[in-house]
Amino acid sequence: MNFLEERILKDGVVKPGNVLKMDTFLNHQLDMQLIDRIGQELASRFQGAGVTKVLTIEVSGIPIACAVGRALGVPVVYAKKSRSINIDGKIYVAEVESYTQGLKNRIIVSKKLLSSRDKVLLVDDILANGYALQGLVSIVEDAGAEVAGVGIAVEKGFQEGGWRIRNLGYRLESVAIIQEMDAKTGKITFGAPNE
Amino acid sequence: MNFLEERILKDGVVKPGNVLKMDTFLNHQLDMQLIDRIGQELASRFQGAGVTKVLTIEVSGIPIACAVGRALGVPVVYAKKSRSINIDGKIYVAEVESYTQGLKNRIIVSKKLLSSRDKVLLVDDILANGYALQGLVSIVEDAGAEVAGVGIAVEKGFQEGGWRIRNLGYRLESVAIIQEMDAKTGKITFGAPNE
Repeated sequence: MNFLEERILKDGVVKPGNVLKMDTFLNHQLDMQLIDRIGQELASRFQGAGVTKVLTIEVSGIPIACAVGRALGVPVVYAKKSRSINIDGKIYVAEVESYTQGLKNRIIVSKKLLSSRDKVLLVDDILANGYALQGLVSIVEDAGAEVAGVGIAVEKGFQEGGWRIRNLGYRLESVAIIQEMDAKTGKITFGAPNE
Repeated sequence: MNFLEERILKDGVVKPGNVLKMDTFLNHQLDMQLIDRIGQELASRFQGAGVTKVLTIEVSGIPIACAVGRALGVPVVYAKKSRSINIDGKIYVAEVESYTQGLKNRIIVSKKLLSSRDKVLLVDDILANGYALQGLVSIVEDAGAEVAGVGIAVEKGFQEGGWRIRNLGYRLESVAIIQEMDAKTGKITFGAPNE
């Protein structure tokens, strides 16, 4: 069992509706040593892949993305969830369904931040159905850039996101993959990727 | 002129309506070396202040808060802007007006993440009118915790936030304080805090 799986067993709480609360260490409250270790682990798996930029989506992907960007020595870009008056000019746009909020978000990235020369590593804290990642993939494609791969802290292997991303031909690396979890017993089982 | 002031002169863009775009290095895209240096600078100013936790508010405060938390060796908590189904149980709540979005947000922090034993350093990327910070102060007070101080990357010295926070008796440290900026000429002038 690796360091993140151990931490999930220690502090993660399974709730009904396939919800895994990790708000004391991964989102809401951040254990920076853990976040940095996840960043270093993901960076080491994509070392040599020629990554020029890390791309994530606000909010909870940002700390992990920062740790990966630091470890790879590349800038981090986070897609924003709605058009603020602080973003003018040309933007890439994608529609993303939110699992936890039950609504559609428009995500945007300023065009000046991605170019056709970029090799982009997509990073997020949790992979469930993969909708957020699909939005990010679509933005990278709009920019004519290349997806170097996908780095995830916690993949819910019993949801379709991981399968979908791997089936599209992208290299997906998750530090922890949950194969089963049970809200009644609190039991969490880890495993290898579903091919 | 310090490293952040130099970077703002180089890459910041003044827009009408007191907007300073720093989206190529401080928010939207993150220069991790710069972010880390800001974090180390703020951490060094509050070294010895007994900080047990860094508190910020989503979204753009998170990278700086992570860098400060890492440098001080304490956990980071970010207040969330709306109630998601992933937060149950007891929460602290404050109302915050958003300058850039022109609407009121409810910000929340899970009660289990702040206790009366905490000395909390409030961190944000930009200080303008100080509404977000006032919301965070109110949450720290609700928790019976102590505000150890306020650390800011870029303070707009010509808006009332800095004055307001210092007048409340809190120690406020900003890495760069903008005294004047002009959308027509693009000129930006830095200075010391307004007392």
